[in-house]
Amino acid sequence: MAEQTPPVPKVLAFDVFGTVVDWHTTIAREVESLVPGIDGDAFALQWRQGYAPAMAATMASGTFRVLDDLHMDILRTIAPPLSESQLSELNRAWHRLDPWPEAVAALNRLKSRFVITPLSNGGIGLLTYMAKRAGLPWDLILCAEVFGAYKPDHRTYQGVARVLGVKPEEVMMVAAHEKDLDAAQDAGLQTAYIERVHEFGAKRTKDVSPSPRHPLHFRDLAALADYFGC
Amino acid sequence: MAEQTPPVPKVLAFDVFGTVVDWHTTIAREVESLVPGIDGDAFALQWRQGYAPAMAATMASGTFRVLDDLHMDILRTIAPPLSESQLSELNRAWHRLDPWPEAVAALNRLKSRFVITPLSNGGIGLLTYMAKRAGLPWDLILCAEVFGAYKPDHRTYQGVARVLGVKPEEVMMVAAHEKDLDAAQDAGLQTAYIERVHEFGAKRTKDVSPSPRHPLHFRDLAALADYFGC
Repeated sequence: MAEQTPPVPKVLAFDVFGTVVDWHTTIAREVESLVPGIDGDAFALQWRQGYAPAMAATMASGTFRVLDDLHMDILRTIAPPLSESQLSELNRAWHRLDPWPEAVAALNRLKSRFVITPLSNGGIGLLTYMAKRAGLPWDLILCAEVFGAYKPDHRTYQGVARVLGVKPEEVMMVAAHEKDLDAAQDAGLQTAYIERVHEFGAKRTKDVSPSPRHPLHFRDLAALADYFGC
Repeated sequence: MAEQTPPVPKVLAFDVFGTVVDWHTTIAREVESLVPGIDGDAFALQWRQGYAPAMAATMASGTFRVLDDLHMDILRTIAPPLSESQLSELNRAWHRLDPWPEAVAALNRLKSRFVITPLSNGGIGLLTYMAKRAGLPWDLILCAEVFGAYKPDHRTYQGVARVLGVKPEEVMMVAAHEKDLDAAQDAGLQTAYIERVHEFGAKRTKDVSPSPRHPLHFRDLAALADYFGC
């Protein structure tokens, strides 16, 4: 039996950290400006490494906390030599992440044809302030906080379709992370992979080999816009 | 004791139906194009009149339903002579409401200085499609569906402050309806009243006399932007 061609999507849902914005560069730069002599590269990696376990623990507890609070918990375990107010200021660096160079122009092109929304584990406030500063032209802000669950919980992916009144297969998840796309596909969404070779810093190269599960595979968001002819 | 001057707000939250968009004109026009000879003016008023009781019944039941579903229930009680697909199409007229003439330009001015969000009883999808069609430049979409309660429930007003990480008094509710502003003020928000003399149609004039509870009182959203020097 021939596979059915999926419908043209109506909604594009974007992972944000790594896919749309460059968390590593911004976090490294901000901590280096606050703590002279610190290794910003290692610090950024360490902070980010605490993220998945903190989310898993939160979901296992049956409660929901916004990512800002998890970020602060992790930051306290790293314990850089900073005052309370400096810690708070540094924690808000996640609201100030710089977009990848082509991201804003590409999102504006895609917005002309699709509803574009983040689907991030960041909170509503974090994503709003980030978008306002960086010029990310989202049509709306959807995220873990709206659905009361973190990705890869299916409530997040299917929630996008539900609140926008479309079928799951009319939503395309766009991400630089295969696990995110795997879960989105299991939840019924279409998927597109974005290469971000230097997500973890200029010193290291991420394996961005194409996966058979996600044949739509693009160098960046501009290439995704080219694909759709936007 | 002298009253304290309220802080400059960081967030402006807008009522939508009547305040930002002209529901009466759009609904009357759409039903007149579908049902020859119908009195669109009376039809629009009748549909809108069912709204408050439907929300009250929903809240009393302890559940939450999106406004699209309540609109459809009310539409079926009015029972215009239309097929099922025409009823669905007419129900989506609430996604296609035209903005008041000055609204888009004024919101763009206000967006340069404040976070701007709807705070409407419309659903996430309704408000997203409306904004995309009309060019309403919201920073994010907040509404009853996000908070699981309709205005004037305080969870909606206080929810805006909570998800954006600000104090209630740093949010200003902007609405053409005193009851909405009364509840927002009771919940700790600042308030601004917008005159919409012809909210209920060109044939009738709404009483827009200033209320002592809401001294910030403007002819339209351009006057609000003027007030803030945007």
